Parts: sequence; structure tokens; C-alpha cells
Amino acid sequence: MISTMTDCIFCRIVRGEIPSQTVYQNEWVTAFHDIAPKAPVHILIVSNKHLSGPLGVEETDAPIIGEIALAANRIARQLGFAANGFRLVANEGHDGSQSVAHLHFHLLAGRRLGWPPG
Amino acid sequence: MISTMTDCIFCRIVRGEIPSQTVYQNEWVTAFHDIAPKAPVHILIVSNKHLSGPLGVEETDAPIIGEIALAANRIARQLGFAANGFRLVANEGHDGSQSVAHLHFHLLAGRRLGWPPG
Repeated sequence: MISTMTDCIFCRIVRGEIPSQTVYQNEWVTAFHDIAPKAPVHILIVSNKHLSGPLGVEETDAPIIGEIALAANRIARQLGFAANGFRLVANEGHDGSQSVAHLHFHLLAGRRLGWPPG
Repeated sequence: MISTMTDCIFCRIVRGEIPSQTVYQNEWVTAFHDIAPKAPVHILIVSNKHLSGPLGVEETDAPIIGEIALAANRIARQLGFAANGFRLVANEGHDGSQSVAHLHFHLLAGRRLGWPPG
């Protein structure tokens, strides 16, 4: 069984209790469109298991991060932006401007992302 | 044996042929300070194996992405910025503004990172 939390908004999306525009889901991750997009394509890829963020990933959960990257690649091919490229962003804590305390990577595409990244 | 490329700048750093300010290295990844930092802490975490970027990661190499995340956490604790937080960024192709065609994650910390991330 996957460990989820009752009141976490991303856990609720993973469980289908809150509707989302889901673009990809497998055993490990769920991906859906960000409700406040910052690029023509802005998708959140979240772990199905509740983890607090990047820093909450211990060795046993590290494969989930690999699954997030594989999901990003599959989505990029599926939605047709693989050739043009994309950016993956994960935020931890205050300085990272983390918004939800559940591990998620932002997948941004459809325009050239500038530098620095925030 | 790790697969590296003769002329790739990050492969040369991994092999120690080009000096870098290395902060962490293990069997899977090498981390060193970015030479053009965009935050008080700006470290690159690269795969020791030559992979073209996020999109070059196939299923067999996905565990390397997990190792990159674990390395980020270890570095954050080692350098004392875990509590304040950080941002992880990986760029793919033109729209991602990828600069070097070798898989690397930017680890930024030491200031509050803005939004959007580029």
C-alpha cells in the first residue's frame, strides 16, 4: 500500500479525491497540469507516496526520483515537446520557495526558460 | 567501468583532468561549484556516466537520478543549508537552456529563489 496523508492536497489528487488534469500516472508518480502555469506547458510530477520534499527522500525512496525523471521524458514525448526541451525544478523549504510539503517536480516547457532559474 | 567521453568537459572533471572545486563524489555522481554562480551556493551535481541530459536517461540509468537527489541532501546537510532549503534544476535542450550536453542538476541555495524559475 502507498503511504498517503489525509489532508495533503497532493495526496488527495493522487487518490483522485480532488480533480486534476492528469497527464500521466503509474505505480510511483502522478503528473497533472499546474493550476498556476508559468509556461505554455507546466506540469507537476508528484510522488504517489507522501514525502515532504527532496530532503525527505531517504535511500529507500530514491528510486522514486528516477521514476519522476522517466515520467518527465515520457510526458515530453507524449505531448511532443521532447525535441524542443524542458526544465525540471524541485523546491525544498523556504529558500527554494517550496509551496506544498509533498515531493513534486515542476516540468516546464513551451518557451525558452531564462537564467537564473529564479 | 564508467562510460565517459574524451572531450566532454564534465567527463573530464569527473576524471579529474580538469580541476574543479569538488564538494562531493561517490560511485555515481560528482558535485562541484558552478564557475558562474547564480546564488550564494550554486553547485552542479553531474552523473559520472556520460548521459546527454534528462532525456538521455533510460530505465537502466534512472537510479542515477535518485543518487543525484541523495547527493543534494548530503551536500545540504554538509554545508549547513538544509534547514533553509534549496532548489534543484535540470535543463534539457533549447527551451531548457541546457548549457552542457552531460546530465547535471543545479543545486542553488543561500538566498530565496524567485518564481517562476526562469
